[in-house]
Amino acid sequence: MSTVRSSLTDENRDTTAKALQGALVDLIDLSLVGKQAHWNVYGKNFRSLHLQLDEIVLSARNAADLVAERAIAIGVSADGRAATVADTSSLPKIHDGTISDTEVISLMIEAYTSVIANMRERIETTESADPVSQDLLIGITAELEKQSWMFQAELG
Amino acid sequence: MSTVRSSLTDENRDTTAKALQGALVDLIDLSLVGKQAHWNVYGKNFRSLHLQLDEIVLSARNAADLVAERAIAIGVSADGRAATVADTSSLPKIHDGTISDTEVISLMIEAYTSVIANMRERIETTESADPVSQDLLIGITAELEKQSWMFQAELG
Amino acid sequence: MSTVRSSLTDENRDTTAKALQGALVDLIDLSLVGKQAHWNVYGKNFRSLHLQLDEIVLSARNAADLVAERAIAIGVSADGRAATVADTSSLPKIHDGTISDTEVISLMIEAYTSVIANMRERIETTESADPVSQDLLIGITAELEKQSWMFQAELG
Amino acid sequence: MSTVRSSLTDENRDTTAKALQGALVDLIDLSLVGKQAHWNVYGKNFRSLHLQLDEIVLSARNAADLVAERAIAIGVSADGRAATVADTSSLPKIHDGTISDTEVISLMIEAYTSVIANMRERIETTESADPVSQDLLIGITAELEKQSWMFQAELG
Amino acid sequence: MSTVRSSLTDENRDTTAKALQGALVDLIDLSLVGKQAHWNVYGKNFRSLHLQLDEIVLSARNAADLVAERAIAIGVSADGRAATVADTSSLPKIHDGTISDTEVISLMIEAYTSVIANMRERIETTESADPVSQDLLIGITAELEKQSWMFQAELG
Amino acid sequence: MSTVRSSLTDENRDTTAKALQGALVDLIDLSLVGKQAHWNVYGKNFRSLHLQLDEIVLSARNAADLVAERAIAIGVSADGRAATVADTSSLPKIHDGTISDTEVISLMIEAYTSVIANMRERIETTESADPVSQDLLIGITAELEKQSWMFQAELG
Amino acid sequence: MSTVRSSLTDENRDTTAKALQGALVDLIDLSLVGKQAHWNVYGKNFRSLHLQLDEIVLSARNAADLVAERAIAIGVSADGRAATVADTSSLPKIHDGTISDTEVISLMIEAYTSVIANMRERIETTESADPVSQDLLIGITAELEKQSWMFQAELG
Amino acid sequence: MSTVRSSLTDENRDTTAKALQGALVDLIDLSLVGKQAHWNVYGKNFRSLHLQLDEIVLSARNAADLVAERAIAIGVSADGRAATVADTSSLPKIHDGTISDTEVISLMIEAYTSVIANMRERIETTESADPVSQDLLIGITAELEKQSWMFQAELG
Amino acid sequence: MSTVRSSLTDENRDTTAKALQGALVDLIDLSLVGKQAHWNVYGKNFRSLHLQLDEIVLSARNAADLVAERAIAIGVSADGRAATVADTSSLPKIHDGTISDTEVISLMIEAYTSVIANMRERIETTESADPVSQDLLIGITAELEKQSWMFQAELG
Amino acid sequence: MSTVRSSLTDENRDTTAKALQGALVDLIDLSLVGKQAHWNVYGKNFRSLHLQLDEIVLSARNAADLVAERAIAIGVSADGRAATVADTSSLPKIHDGTISDTEVISLMIEAYTSVIANMRERIETTESADPVSQDLLIGITAELEKQSWMFQAELG
Amino acid sequence: MSTVRSSLTDENRDTTAKALQGALVDLIDLSLVGKQAHWNVYGKNFRSLHLQLDEIVLSARNAADLVAERAIAIGVSADGRAATVADTSSLPKIHDGTISDTEVISLMIEAYTSVIANMRERIETTESADPVSQDLLIGITAELEKQSWMFQAELG
Amino acid sequence: MSTVRSSLTDENRDTTAKALQGALVDLIDLSLVGKQAHWNVYGKNFRSLHLQLDEIVLSARNAADLVAERAIAIGVSADGRAATVADTSSLPKIHDGTISDTEVISLMIEAYTSVIANMRERIETTESADPVSQDLLIGITAELEKQSWMFQAELG
Repeated sequence: MSTVRSSLTDENRDTTAKALQGALVDLIDLSLVGKQAHWNVYGKNFRSLHLQLDEIVLSARNAADLVAERAIAIGVSADGRAATVADTSSLPKIHDGTISDTEVISLMIEAYTSVIANMRERIETTESADPVSQDLLIGITAELEKQSWMFQAELG
Repeated sequence: MSTVRSSLTDENRDTTAKALQGALVDLIDLSLVGKQAHWNVYGKNFRSLHLQLDEIVLSARNAADLVAERAIAIGVSADGRAATVADTSSLPKIHDGTISDTEVISLMIEAYTSVIANMRERIETTESADPVSQDLLIGITAELEKQSWMFQAELG
Repeated sequence: MSTVRSSLTDENRDTTAKALQGALVDLIDLSLVGKQAHWNVYGKNFRSLHLQLDEIVLSARNAADLVAERAIAIGVSADGRAATVADTSSLPKIHDGTISDTEVISLMIEAYTSVIANMRERIETTESADPVSQDLLIGITAELEKQSWMFQAELG
Repeated sequence: MSTVRSSLTDENRDTTAKALQGALVDLIDLSLVGKQAHWNVYGKNFRSLHLQLDEIVLSARNAADLVAERAIAIGVSADGRAATVADTSSLPKIHDGTISDTEVISLMIEAYTSVIANMRERIETTESADPVSQDLLIGITAELEKQSWMFQAELG
Repeated sequence: MSTVRSSLTDENRDTTAKALQGALVDLIDLSLVGKQAHWNVYGKNFRSLHLQLDEIVLSARNAADLVAERAIAIGVSADGRAATVADTSSLPKIHDGTISDTEVISLMIEAYTSVIANMRERIETTESADPVSQDLLIGITAELEKQSWMFQAELG
Repeated sequence: MSTVRSSLTDENRDTTAKALQGALVDLIDLSLVGKQAHWNVYGKNFRSLHLQLDEIVLSARNAADLVAERAIAIGVSADGRAATVADTSSLPKIHDGTISDTEVISLMIEAYTSVIANMRERIETTESADPVSQDLLIGITAELEKQSWMFQAELG
Repeated sequence: MSTVRSSLTDENRDTTAKALQGALVDLIDLSLVGKQAHWNVYGKNFRSLHLQLDEIVLSARNAADLVAERAIAIGVSADGRAATVADTSSLPKIHDGTISDTEVISLMIEAYTSVIANMRERIETTESADPVSQDLLIGITAELEKQSWMFQAELG
Repeated sequence: MSTVRSSLTDENRDTTAKALQGALVDLIDLSLVGKQAHWNVYGKNFRSLHLQLDEIVLSARNAADLVAERAIAIGVSADGRAATVADTSSLPKIHDGTISDTEVISLMIEAYTSVIANMRERIETTESADPVSQDLLIGITAELEKQSWMFQAELG
Repeated sequence: MSTVRSSLTDENRDTTAKALQGALVDLIDLSLVGKQAHWNVYGKNFRSLHLQLDEIVLSARNAADLVAERAIAIGVSADGRAATVADTSSLPKIHDGTISDTEVISLMIEAYTSVIANMRERIETTESADPVSQDLLIGITAELEKQSWMFQAELG
Repeated sequence: MSTVRSSLTDENRDTTAKALQGALVDLIDLSLVGKQAHWNVYGKNFRSLHLQLDEIVLSARNAADLVAERAIAIGVSADGRAATVADTSSLPKIHDGTISDTEVISLMIEAYTSVIANMRERIETTESADPVSQDLLIGITAELEKQSWMFQAELG
Repeated sequence: MSTVRSSLTDENRDTTAKALQGALVDLIDLSLVGKQAHWNVYGKNFRSLHLQLDEIVLSARNAADLVAERAIAIGVSADGRAATVADTSSLPKIHDGTISDTEVISLMIEAYTSVIANMRERIETTESADPVSQDLLIGITAELEKQSWMFQAELG
Repeated sequence: MSTVRSSLTDENRDTTAKALQGALVDLIDLSLVGKQAHWNVYGKNFRSLHLQLDEIVLSARNAADLVAERAIAIGVSADGRAATVADTSSLPKIHDGTISDTEVISLMIEAYTSVIANMRERIETTESADPVSQDLLIGITAELEKQSWMFQAELG
């Protein structure tokens, strides 16, 4: 099924693959949700949020790329298609149309709360399965928790 | 519904909005399909395609951003959520798992053929409705047709 | 009167010249009004507006330069002197002294509404007279409408 | 004959192809004539012209590249070989040997007058045939007319 | 009237404010005159002056910005509106239409002679009133005198 | 006591040394206070202040470095140790824990008011003692007064 | 007390907070001690140490910033005020005045020995409490041990 | 024997030193083998492999440098001499002379398989001995596994 | 005939001039042939050749410029007009229309074989006539032989 | 005698001219002496001094340029010819041949002591004659005193 | 044996190949020896040598690459494997473990003396065989002799 | 007398040393003469010459540095002191005071004629004595002859 011989046992590879695929979908969805808010936000803090959201989109896209390429490197494929993201993302759905600046902050905090909780679980399950993948997930979680703080600090 | 007063008449705004929303969804899907192939491709031309696909993803993301912000600027919202992309994109679906280099080329040519045909229609419908939006769609189509040539040239 | 032989007929040159001279004066005035607000603004959103205004000044200056050089290239001179700007600009006047952040937003939206309406007319009048000049005006209008959206979004 | 399926009808493709091939040859010849003058110019304004000519060579080379790749993208080949340029360019011939600074200015103005007139025709013929190619030709013509002004302004 | 508590006494603030407002208007007018000449100049030295004028415009714009922000920082507002510049600038007026290269040089030398004389007075009046503002005016004057030399050297 | 022979008389050196050491301690404390607020600030303007505070920390660190090296260059040592800063800084103390955005602005304005008043005195005392050191203190004060304006403007 | 909901349990958060606050104070003090030596060092190796010390100051400042922002991200505040650093740093005190190059090396080795021992303990205590914070501390310790080697190698 | 006092116990230092020295030799050999193939490769995919090999050489050299400096930092010396590499590398030998593109891919996959298996062991042995060194080896292994995937994907 | 007094004897100047003019024509033709192939190539290795050809065009253009300016510097004019290149180039002619990737490689090897043989002769004839020109030709030949190898290596 | 009308009175111009010409010669000589030492130095600190000397040469060259252009700007010519430097520089002569590192330090300290004393006098004489020139001399002296400290610190 | 047809006669190719292969091995060994010293050096001049050695490693690696690619370009393969370097390098062996700064200097001077003597011979043997390769060897030798001077100058 | 053991025989070293010392003095004088003209030039072509002269000063300074370091590298010292330049330069003397643009051109052509003739001799004398030094002198002469052409071309 894959062109790459894994350097992990089958069991460790499957455990790690599940953690990476979950992270991949969440990160792609975070980048799409971030862009959706980047475009449709309005309110007194429009400009500040517009810029902040673009930074987290860039960060989420880079993280997704690292996670997907890690999956391939351990011998499984990565699935980041629109339908897969729409169906399996753990992020809360957001409505269409314009979004006020205060609602954007609430929505993003909810999204981060969900992603971070799942990332913490993935860090645990990969600890013995593959410390190399775990190290990658730890680094991404550190970044997500920093971004989450920044939205929470804006609640005032 | 929108925070922006349009400089277009209601009818022209609606015509233009439809063209821009269609382009937005197609371009986001192109970026997701491009990444999917970027990760899962294999074969003798792996490296060349892996690099080429990343360039078109970057180009599609930038184009999507311009299109979405143009929609907002004429007084409508933009919808680039995962479910919207999954449901309304005009691109052919692609399967999951690894993809050989020759299949990647076929898949991308099909995707471009579909997107370009739709873009050509959007250029026509926006000509009288909003020449400013039309100019944007013309520029994006030029880029898409250039990328399409490059995949076709690789058919050998 | 000019050192350049026009590649347009006299009538087309005069039509285009009028559109370009009008755009030049409006864009220079936009850059001066933008700087005036950049310096004298105060309020909770001081820093965000201070930065945003500097970006639009840069953009307006570049656009003015392109428009003036286009006028010269079709065989007419360009007039961007202070008195000409003060006398013929279509932008609303602004008062001197400090300006609150909310007032800055209102003033800028008024300014953009006026400039964009005039630019839309100039796009129409140059369509048959000189498509090369029209293409330049279209590009500048796209940018102006994007900047206008951003101030409107900040109304909250 | 070509590896690329055109998104244009046969008739529109042929019309557009002729315009693009004509532009390609003129632009390559402009770059060769520009270099010829860049090397062999002498006179009080040597340095200024030497630098100015290098800038237009760079500009002409980039424009030629865009035009040729556009031709390929619509399903025709591009011909920029030395003999084709020597035989079909619409630019006036220039003599060999050293060229005084004042003669260089006259020669370049003649060259631009010829190229611009042809580009204006190509803009017209591609308007309905292919607005995407037309948009490219408009942008190049704007640049050529600006460069033409600069040589005319130096006539004193 | 201002949002900023001045670190100067009322008298020193008023003296300094007058010097800064005068410098601001002169520098903005210098940037507008410089652009006017940048566009409309012709003659054998067109290219050299065209480039030189753009450099002094950039320099004048930066100086104007520093002066205006210094005014705000000592607790007064800054007035750089088109009408204020047209009415209170100490620069000689210039005519519209094309300007020969030799006339440009004469016009610029006149402009610099006027601005520099006024700047020298402002340096004197701010010496005891505010050495911080004086230091800024000294730096700007050094730059203006250097630019003035360069135009004088071109008289031949 | 120092490895450097001073180019000043003993009396002038001591006067200048006192001014420089005072400035050094205030600037280091400003950088520490700025970072403290950068980390612990919260409120609607969190992001804007978070970025603004980092800029003033950078500026204060650079100024401190210039001041300390100036002290060494005139033949005295510089003391920027934590205890020296804690004991001799003229800045008001700030509490630990989170700080709301409005409180941050008040705290920073108090800090600047105190530092600027002291810097103005140092400019006076070094005028005859060492014009080279005075010139450095003038430049730093200009920057501090500009930063102070920006916080005051945010009071709204 | 904090605006951020921690993704850690209370106990893990307190354990981690203590480790991070300790690291923060030590790193700020290292940056102040480094600057103190940077300015006051003399001796044959003055220039080499002057440059080396500036590099470690930059490194310590960056590390301090990462540690403080990590503390905020897990829901505690960070304390980097001058008095807190003076009172709770684990680095040995250094005297004021000039310092010979050989003494600088001894002082820095002592400082590093103390900081590294504490960092090793913090790595242990955060292992189960928060692997994300532990990963950050490991990275900083690697850098500190490398810098420590460089000073030891200079002992000769 | 070393100039650096280790922050590890003797036993942990020896365990870690052995892992680092093994990694150092393998990484240097990987860089030499990579260059050998970079020069002598031929075949349809020459250019792609020529470029790909240079990237992994750069990566291997950087990794070797980090590993060697880590060894010194924990108080042991590093041995990267040609004879040591020739005698103790765990990479398979390669023949001299030209190498076809398909053979290069096979050779590199073999080399990576060998290095990665050894790196995985080194990650295990350093886990309790020195988590700081382990973290470095984890990061290098992630990079090696990614490079290994890319060669495997090219097998087609 | 030339504006430059040669630092060579008449005989040496003529010998050198002939070598340089020959090199100039060959290098310009190489750049035109390279671009022709860059645009019209197709086949599995399209992308790799498309990029490789652009690099050699850039290299050939730079070399042509150096050679032409060397000719002027020794007191002769340079002739790089389209007709001169078409008539006197020593490169084999290539057909118009699309070119397969394998044919491109054969064509380029033929072109290099011809140019390099001529360059080797020019190196010999200029050895005593002008070692300065010879040094330039040696440097260009080194680059040409390296590019030639790369195409030969791709023959597989 | 000069092409520039001075904005100073004749007396002030002569006083300032003398100060600037003296500074020019000293700074050029400092750059030549610095290079002489840069090339001929030897000893344990060769590399450190070799680099340090190149930095002060760069600094002295820039300062000389500013001083000479200031002289021209106030209406006098500048004399920086080799013979003028050799005859009128106030720097002590240095011998030819190799120079040990410790001797280089002594020589440079002597050179700086002489230049700085003269610069301090020039600052005084220009205070009322031309504060703009004085400001330039103050800035250069600050830099020279900093460089002087660094050589003195290396005395050990 | 090679994929490249040589532009040299068989005899000249063999002579040149031997010179290039010898240079290649020496330069690779110089880079390995340089890194070995870069890591293991200690002493008062540690930092200066540590940096200097890294520069020569970079220089030797670049030179090796040029030499190896030149060998391929003339139709022979290049051999830079660890065992070949260990067996055929003309550099003196160095011991493992730490190396004092003064010993490093002696070792490097010995290494350079050996390499330079061999390079001088290679320059002679390639003079008639291949002036293009000779020119490359001359350039590398110039760099090696400059680096050799710098180590000798440090002997004091 | 020197710290460097020459890789040349005594006779070859002396021959080469003389050529290099002569080149060094001429190049330093060229840089001083170039700056003198850069500052004091006036006339219609002031700006063009002012810029051109700065480029040749930069080029001459770099060449002088290469020549001086080459002298040291072959075991002799370099003498670039002001008096040595004033006494032994082969350039014609130039007068002080302002210089018209046409005179600058004549002066520079004379200077280049003299330097180039001497450089040609130095190329001959070093051919057998030291091909490495000869290669350096050839490269510098190529640059000088190019610069000489540019001044001659400006004679008109």
